[in-house]
Amino acid sequence: MLMTDLIAKKRDGEELTTEEIRFLIDCYVSGKIADYQMSALCMAILFRGMSDRETLDLTMAMMHSGDVVDLSPIRGVKGDKHSTGGVGDKTSLILCPMVAACGLRIAKMSGRGLGHTGGTLDKLESFPGYNIAIGEKRFIDNVNRIGIAIMGQTANIVPADKKLYALRDVTGTVASIPLIVSSIMSKKLAAGADVIVLDVKCGSGAFMKTEEDAYKLANGLTRIGKLAGKKCAAVITDMDQPLGCAVGNALEVKEAISVLRGETKGDLLELCLTLGSCLLVGAGIAEDKEKAEAMLREAVDSGAALRKLAEMVEAQDGRAEDVYDTSRLPEAPVKLEVPSEVSGYMRHIECEKIGLISMHLGGGRATKDSQIDLSVGLVLHKKVGDRVEKGESLATIHASTEEKAREAAELLRACCSFSDEPVQRPTFIKAIIQ
Amino acid sequence: MLMTDLIAKKRDGEELTTEEIRFLIDCYVSGKIADYQMSALCMAILFRGMSDRETLDLTMAMMHSGDVVDLSPIRGVKGDKHSTGGVGDKTSLILCPMVAACGLRIAKMSGRGLGHTGGTLDKLESFPGYNIAIGEKRFIDNVNRIGIAIMGQTANIVPADKKLYALRDVTGTVASIPLIVSSIMSKKLAAGADVIVLDVKCGSGAFMKTEEDAYKLANGLTRIGKLAGKKCAAVITDMDQPLGCAVGNALEVKEAISVLRGETKGDLLELCLTLGSCLLVGAGIAEDKEKAEAMLREAVDSGAALRKLAEMVEAQDGRAEDVYDTSRLPEAPVKLEVPSEVSGYMRHIECEKIGLISMHLGGGRATKDSQIDLSVGLVLHKKVGDRVEKGESLATIHASTEEKAREAAELLRACCSFSDEPVQRPTFIKAIIQ
Repeated sequence: MLMTDLIAKKRDGEELTTEEIRFLIDCYVSGKIADYQMSALCMAILFRGMSDRETLDLTMAMMHSGDVVDLSPIRGVKGDKHSTGGVGDKTSLILCPMVAACGLRIAKMSGRGLGHTGGTLDKLESFPGYNIAIGEKRFIDNVNRIGIAIMGQTANIVPADKKLYALRDVTGTVASIPLIVSSIMSKKLAAGADVIVLDVKCGSGAFMKTEEDAYKLANGLTRIGKLAGKKCAAVITDMDQPLGCAVGNALEVKEAISVLRGETKGDLLELCLTLGSCLLVGAGIAEDKEKAEAMLREAVDSGAALRKLAEMVEAQDGRAEDVYDTSRLPEAPVKLEVPSEVSGYMRHIECEKIGLISMHLGGGRATKDSQIDLSVGLVLHKKVGDRVEKGESLATIHASTEEKAREAAELLRACCSFSDEPVQRPTFIKAIIQ
Repeated sequence: MLMTDLIAKKRDGEELTTEEIRFLIDCYVSGKIADYQMSALCMAILFRGMSDRETLDLTMAMMHSGDVVDLSPIRGVKGDKHSTGGVGDKTSLILCPMVAACGLRIAKMSGRGLGHTGGTLDKLESFPGYNIAIGEKRFIDNVNRIGIAIMGQTANIVPADKKLYALRDVTGTVASIPLIVSSIMSKKLAAGADVIVLDVKCGSGAFMKTEEDAYKLANGLTRIGKLAGKKCAAVITDMDQPLGCAVGNALEVKEAISVLRGETKGDLLELCLTLGSCLLVGAGIAEDKEKAEAMLREAVDSGAALRKLAEMVEAQDGRAEDVYDTSRLPEAPVKLEVPSEVSGYMRHIECEKIGLISMHLGGGRATKDSQIDLSVGLVLHKKVGDRVEKGESLATIHASTEEKAREAAELLRACCSFSDEPVQRPTFIKAIIQ
């Protein structure tokens, strides 16, 4: 089998066979296929696409390039969630305890954040003592005992994706649906859950800028998940403004806890109810969406969901009290309000730039080895469609120094635009694909 | 300027600017742009194409990556010819002396053959003593004195093409019209002639398999040649069977001389008259095609064209006698006729395989450093449409050993197919693009 022939085949619009796809992933990982051939193939795939059969084959070949996590020692149905990444996305911190409180098993291996989107592990480390490296045995035992554990990746999950994604990133070949689908799904399948829900973000702060593209991706992800034998659903959600109000690690944990307490409603709760319903119905725990939502609301109202978070924190060497009393979490020394200079309606918030402000304050990683400040970030008081009076605070900046706070306030003001006329609030949940 | 942005721009169907194209060729040659990025860009160009402006910019950027030959010390209009490569193509050996005899200056730097298509230099070295390394001064002086010189490349012509072509060859990105056009035209423009004619081969033995593709390439080549300020024309010719009858270095020289003597007519003469007319009209030496053809026929009939070849051979350290008496050229020890096993009409000759037989006999290079046997090859006695009686010879094999001759005869028989019904001779000149 010659790589040049495989490139030509795909370039000419033909389908690659299962053997050909296995060959090219195996040989690429082992270094027998050169980067310059793989990048040309990726560009041909970007133009020609891949059939579902090809995409499934690619996903499985990539999954088998490394370790596949065996969750079979865990009793019950295992659930997992993936988000394509956005600003202020603390969904896992709320959703996982909620569905675990309803009986779904959550054995989640998570990653750190890079760039302006924070990682779940970083957020969890806002709980002093929280141990992300509890080892596989304790991980499994914890899930069997309390139904939930979230730790860092230990296994060598999909090395093919690490190599391939790094190449695609510098060769203009990221934006191909079958390549994105196989990248995401190979990792989700290798993580071992039975039921998977995907949160596909859409808008200026997301990778998918248009609803059409987000729809294509969500469709591709669920189709491949099902073909691989999993229960799988996707939700397309708005990312034209940050999710919820807090951006920054400890600030996001506080907001998550506020949702779990039932004190904060809005987009964040709506999203967790929707994703949670997909998981509970997929797992056969709830009969339908309505019953699932009722179970999830009850888990919040009864305090069961918040207790589940506290149990997890405690089982991973943190303190349950820190969950119930968030004043014990990291707090920035400087807080600065950002008063509005005009009156009107919030028309637009530049979502990606809000993420960059948090990074600028020290809350995000520029490189893999950057140290981050868990306490800093910002909390928005106004979102798109809200009425704003001149002098009213648009947001609170949480910073390490006065200077950084003032810079961040300037940047934040530049992210907001206003209208004299009332502005329609954006539809947050755009589609559910099952 | 970031290469990733340039790839994305072309991928999304936008035009690259002149500066961007210069940047990418400069940085690729200097090693600042990686092969894996350039191959992805080439694939994007293959799908998206390039405007004439982009193709011209690419051609000029590539041309300026190395030396540009200065032919200004030569008085008169300088002509050049390029062929996209075929089997039995000895056109330059006939065409160059013909047009030189009519007053067009030929200062041609030529290459060696690789694979099954022979090079003009190899053929010229069939004349004992012929010096392909006469140096630039003698080269110029010879053209000023006798109107013609053909030598090996001395200058570092278009290093960008060497690097880029090697990459395209292994990444499925050869078959892109703007990339082929810039590869060919950058070298032709760097060679310094004023009038250029291009012989675009079309058929099973050529790179362009269909007339449609050949037409696109011919059109692209002439458009870019003209935009670069040259007189430029292209001729699309059939390569479903070998050109002329002889395949193999000395055998092709003998056939060329036979055409220059006026003894052999057919496709080869027709091609030289057509290409020659384009050159003479382009140079302003003849008013129109008809007058040009008359001049060229007169150059043959009067013996002026043959004398021009003899003058060139003599001026480059060979002997004029070898041109007039071809029995002095290299001759293979074994000659074997290949009698036909059937009667009928020649329907098809597998052109590319005929080239491979010559290689098998020792007449072509497998690698750049292979030694070749100038004497071996084959001479076809039947071409497509010819009547063949059982037992009549299809071809004469010229070989170094009996065994190789027998093997070649077997291979040759397998290349020919016959029909009981009369077969139409293919149209040889398919189009002239001016």
